[in-house]
Amino acid sequence: MDQVTAIAYSSSANMGPGYDLLAVAHDAFYDAVTATINPSQGNTLLTIGGMEGNPDPMTNTAGLSVINLLRDHGINEPVLLQIRKGIPAGLGLGSSGASAAAAVSAVSELFGLKVSMDEKVKYSMLGEAASSGTPHADNVAASIHGGFVVVESVSPVRVKHLTIHRSFSFLTVIPSIHIKNKTKLCRTLVPKDIPLSSYIQNARFVTELIAGLMGGDRELVKNGMNDVIVEAARKPLYPFYEKLKIMMLEAGAAGVCISGAGPSVVAVVDNLSDIEKIRSGTEEILSRMKIGYSIVESKVAGGTRIERNPAGN
Amino acid sequence: MDQVTAIAYSSSANMGPGYDLLAVAHDAFYDAVTATINPSQGNTLLTIGGMEGNPDPMTNTAGLSVINLLRDHGINEPVLLQIRKGIPAGLGLGSSGASAAAAVSAVSELFGLKVSMDEKVKYSMLGEAASSGTPHADNVAASIHGGFVVVESVSPVRVKHLTIHRSFSFLTVIPSIHIKNKTKLCRTLVPKDIPLSSYIQNARFVTELIAGLMGGDRELVKNGMNDVIVEAARKPLYPFYEKLKIMMLEAGAAGVCISGAGPSVVAVVDNLSDIEKIRSGTEEILSRMKIGYSIVESKVAGGTRIERNPAGN
Repeated sequence: MDQVTAIAYSSSANMGPGYDLLAVAHDAFYDAVTATINPSQGNTLLTIGGMEGNPDPMTNTAGLSVINLLRDHGINEPVLLQIRKGIPAGLGLGSSGASAAAAVSAVSELFGLKVSMDEKVKYSMLGEAASSGTPHADNVAASIHGGFVVVESVSPVRVKHLTIHRSFSFLTVIPSIHIKNKTKLCRTLVPKDIPLSSYIQNARFVTELIAGLMGGDRELVKNGMNDVIVEAARKPLYPFYEKLKIMMLEAGAAGVCISGAGPSVVAVVDNLSDIEKIRSGTEEILSRMKIGYSIVESKVAGGTRIERNPAGN
Repeated sequence: MDQVTAIAYSSSANMGPGYDLLAVAHDAFYDAVTATINPSQGNTLLTIGGMEGNPDPMTNTAGLSVINLLRDHGINEPVLLQIRKGIPAGLGLGSSGASAAAAVSAVSELFGLKVSMDEKVKYSMLGEAASSGTPHADNVAASIHGGFVVVESVSPVRVKHLTIHRSFSFLTVIPSIHIKNKTKLCRTLVPKDIPLSSYIQNARFVTELIAGLMGGDRELVKNGMNDVIVEAARKPLYPFYEKLKIMMLEAGAAGVCISGAGPSVVAVVDNLSDIEKIRSGTEEILSRMKIGYSIVESKVAGGTRIERNPAGN
């Protein structure tokens, strides 16, 4: 096989209190990356095609991940990556992480490399440094593994998949707001030190969230999907967030948080959530603020997978 | 009924990363409190008998709890509390909390008061202030509810019982070490501010611990039963702890932590744990340090309960 396509889903990191540790993959969007052995590019190890934006392999997240993967495995064959973006970028939906995850998976498969799940996360995470300045594993861990994950460790990488109760799915509100260098800016807003009381409060949230998502207890999810540390520091960037959250909870969302570094807002919903009420409430709030948006309903997604028949996709 | 006996079990607070939020009740020991309407004590609202130590109702943890309970319910009848201590005090086993929990439950039953579980925790917690200087809810929440609990909030009190997987039980090593004003001292050792990186690390531990205890995943329990914040600051008080922990994990304990403020050490064990090896390893470590000790195996305990036939107990 001299061509492989892999797809990886969008994800929401943090999920309230889980900064740098929790994320969930959802089937709202996906990226597809086709890796091809491409002798026509001569001595150039890696070229990137098929996307708008940044085709420089050394700073593109997928490119940087694949360059490290190829180098560590002593592969010198020329590779063309064709990236088909389905996940909108810069909106807190794990777009760069999914491209990296799909690229690493496709290239691993292309050369038959024995790369464990945790190693795939490691390589994909290296790419994240290109977009945020800091390698962080949460989004790529969700895209690689699928489902709900905890990043147990980043050095070495160790990720654990946790099973969310089947009653829960997601609704994401995606405001059309683009903040320049958003991910870097959002990381600078995060406090370096926090009072112990904030630790205790957030550790309570983590406990409630994990127990609630695993056990199917919507009251615990509601109590736990909060954050007095990171989300609190970033909220001023997104003046619509608090209004949306209150409205969504009143309309029966099980929990609401900023998706990753925002601006998207993700709600955990179940059969007690009034989706139509959430849709009309969102319209009321965001149209008054003159903010365009879209709403996407999604389910927990699987991990990165090889697409055997990409033409039929 | 003019006499009621209630019993409440020992507990281990913190469980690694859960300072002020997690605790588990175990049937290693219990306290029994008999509350009697006792006209012979005249105008004295509350007298305490049957125990060594502190019989002053205003500073005894059980007494302080009951005084608040009686006052808030407008009860002026004279009450005698007879406290039978089964839980050794000052060893991190929730002894004061269990007395308070049993006393509040016995007196509530004696006067037929409508007191919710959370209110029982609230009153019992007030008593804890007498022993530690700070009202904390973790031990009393475990003794009142039984099992594994998270203190979701202290003001107002809200406690949630979480179910531990049936494969797990406990083994507690109780060193014969008494540190004066231990609980207060231990609280002063806790840092007021922490770096965000410690939050992230401990939040990972909390996630692993909750998912592991609920899901029966011993590897997650092992990874999660750690604490870089509070336990790390207190460890110097207990030079035997690190040695015990390493030995116990090597002998197959699923997780090991300081029980509450120590000095007791509690291990989560299952059928892969070599209990005899843990016993002999403990003997080797503590006898070399000339520290007397006892070892108690226990299971998850139920909550505070009324003993209908205390004479047969």
